[in-house]
Amino acid sequence: MTDLGKSAVTVLGLGAMGTALAEALLAAGHPTTVWNRSPARTAGPAQRGAAVAAATAEAIAASRLIVVCLLDHTSVHAVLDGQELTGRIVVNLTSGTPGQARELDARVAERGGDHLDGAVLAVPSMIGTPDASVLYSGSRGAFDTHRPVLEVFGAADYVGADPGAASLQDAALLSAMYGQVAGVLHAFALVRSAGVTATEFLPRLVGWLTAMGGFPADAARRIDARAYADDVDAALTMQVTAVRNLVRAAREQGVSAELIAPLVPVMQRRIDDGDGGDDLAALVEVITAEEVA
Amino acid sequence: MTDLGKSAVTVLGLGAMGTALAEALLAAGHPTTVWNRSPARTAGPAQRGAAVAAATAEAIAASRLIVVCLLDHTSVHAVLDGQELTGRIVVNLTSGTPGQARELDARVAERGGDHLDGAVLAVPSMIGTPDASVLYSGSRGAFDTHRPVLEVFGAADYVGADPGAASLQDAALLSAMYGQVAGVLHAFALVRSAGVTATEFLPRLVGWLTAMGGFPADAARRIDARAYADDVDAALTMQVTAVRNLVRAAREQGVSAELIAPLVPVMQRRIDDGDGGDDLAALVEVITAEEVA
Ligand SMILES: NC(=O)c1ccc[n+]([C@@H]2O[C@H](COP(=O)([O-])OP(=O)(O)OC[C@H]3O[C@@H](n4cnc5c(N)ncnc54)[C@H](OP(=O)(O)O)[C@@H]3O)[C@@H](O)[C@H]2O)c1
Ligand SMILES: NC(=O)c1ccc[n+]([C@@H]2O[C@H](COP(=O)([O-])OP(=O)(O)OC[C@H]3O[C@@H](n4cnc5c(N)ncnc54)[C@H](OP(=O)(O)O)[C@@H]3O)[C@@H](O)[C@H]2O)c1
Repeated sequence: MTDLGKSAVTVLGLGAMGTALAEALLAAGHPTTVWNRSPARTAGPAQRGAAVAAATAEAIAASRLIVVCLLDHTSVHAVLDGQELTGRIVVNLTSGTPGQARELDARVAERGGDHLDGAVLAVPSMIGTPDASVLYSGSRGAFDTHRPVLEVFGAADYVGADPGAASLQDAALLSAMYGQVAGVLHAFALVRSAGVTATEFLPRLVGWLTAMGGFPADAARRIDARAYADDVDAALTMQVTAVRNLVRAAREQGVSAELIAPLVPVMQRRIDDGDGGDDLAALVEVITAEEVA
Repeated sequence: MTDLGKSAVTVLGLGAMGTALAEALLAAGHPTTVWNRSPARTAGPAQRGAAVAAATAEAIAASRLIVVCLLDHTSVHAVLDGQELTGRIVVNLTSGTPGQARELDARVAERGGDHLDGAVLAVPSMIGTPDASVLYSGSRGAFDTHRPVLEVFGAADYVGADPGAASLQDAALLSAMYGQVAGVLHAFALVRSAGVTATEFLPRLVGWLTAMGGFPADAARRIDARAYADDVDAALTMQVTAVRNLVRAAREQGVSAELIAPLVPVMQRRIDDGDGGDDLAALVEVITAEEVA
């Protein structure tokens, strides 16, 4: 049932994520128009009450709010470039880099539109539940005006006027997650090489990671203060020996060390700069040094 | 105060960790004999009641239980090789690889001794508190007999008869921790490149990592079952695109991607093998494939 008191929304792209977005809008009673390159995917949303547009221009004409969720920025430009966007708010939920979000922002503005860039922190099945959240950046006005619609997808967080901010913070969160994933998988590979199952090792691993849970807060404090040398128990000179031992242990056991070994040269650069008494948080300076170089 | 009802213990090595171990034994009332290459470091424990041995042989003669905590296995061999160890239990708490622990086990056995290898999951200031724990492997009999002494240091966990097991599980825990550290530091570097402080970003980061906390348990189940292809939302083909985007985002922002990028070739090898529909847990197979190759 669509509700004429609710604002109309167009969804461009009905992949796994776009379909979930369209269905959440329909479930919330928004008059919803959908378009997809391959028309077959419009059947589901149409059954639930969506209007189907045959062409992009028609879909864009149907609503002020245009949600775009396509494979990548190349497809976004293929679909949006050359379209008339006056008075339109383009909410791009296609993943990309901060630079791509800034580039899209400029193109939308040229065509008379306003742009909000979003990063979806959820898989499609979570859309419309309290577990989903979306980071938004770009036009603050568009965010404030359309917040009730955006909250249909999940929690809506505005993170800054730089259109690239949402995608940047998304990248930071995903990077942290993939670091944890790499460490955990390396750990399971190591114990399995000695006949210990992952399930057997799990409680010890989770207990240990929980006990180490203070690291982000401790590191944040040091990074913001740029004060890295006050923990004698944690000096990089000692820790680089520990990591080299981890690399050796992996190789002895026939496990590739490629997910762990990259820390060694990063640590060594800080030590070579005369800061071997610093703790791990100082590595933030090493990996941002390229900005200067 | 030493207590003659408690077993005598010798500690070889009074670095930061050896000193903490000796002081915990003294505080618990164990008659304790200490030795260190540089005699100056014996002064503290001596003041608290330790007997000071002038030579290694004398220190080894003083107790059945010999706790060894030196810089590395090279120093352990420098100190122990050639010593008479009949009837002695060598508890090695020096860090090393599983292979080094197995090698030490053989040497101790040749000299008539029994060997327990331990991995200390603590910094020196935690020794003797409930926050410290030590993993042990090797002689089960020695562990069971001397458990009350070992528990003076912290929780004592026996993890297997293979002398390398403690060091291996320690390496697995530390690898998981360093993976998490690498991811978190990369995340802080990224947001800082856009003017967001680590402290500002911290709550979102911690909330996100907490929300992702089910990964180890989910991965463990898949790894043990070798069943990797049942989550269509998490296919490697999609995730490798996401990680490549993270690498690109980092470079755009002037942050080195070296802590994140190594996942890409690992993912790509699995995809190239025709298993692009697998999820991340399958990467355990990729990094252990070298065993076969
Ligand atoms: N799935 C997730 O868990 C998830 C989570 C967070 C963010 N995202 C992001 O959401 C976006 C969409 O993901 P998805 O899972 O929905 O992907 P998907 O299922 O592969 O769908 C891709 C969509 O893009 C369209 N498309 C591709 N190339 C196109 C082109 N050149 N011109 C026009 N349309 C084109 C496809 O149309 P056809 O039907 O015609 O092929 C389809 O609608 C991606 O940027 C992804 O990173 C996804
Ligand atoms: N500190 C920690 O947080 C921590 C945590 C877990 C595990 N560990 C492990 O515990 C072990 C000791 O660490 P630590 O922090 O106590 O190190 P440390 O403070 O550097 O002490 C090193 C000890 O090794 C001795 N040593 C070095 N080379 C020697 C040689 N060739 N012959 C005889 N003795 C030698 C030193 O004697 P001198 O006094 O004569 O130099 C000193 O007693 C290491 O394997 C470390 O990985 C430490």
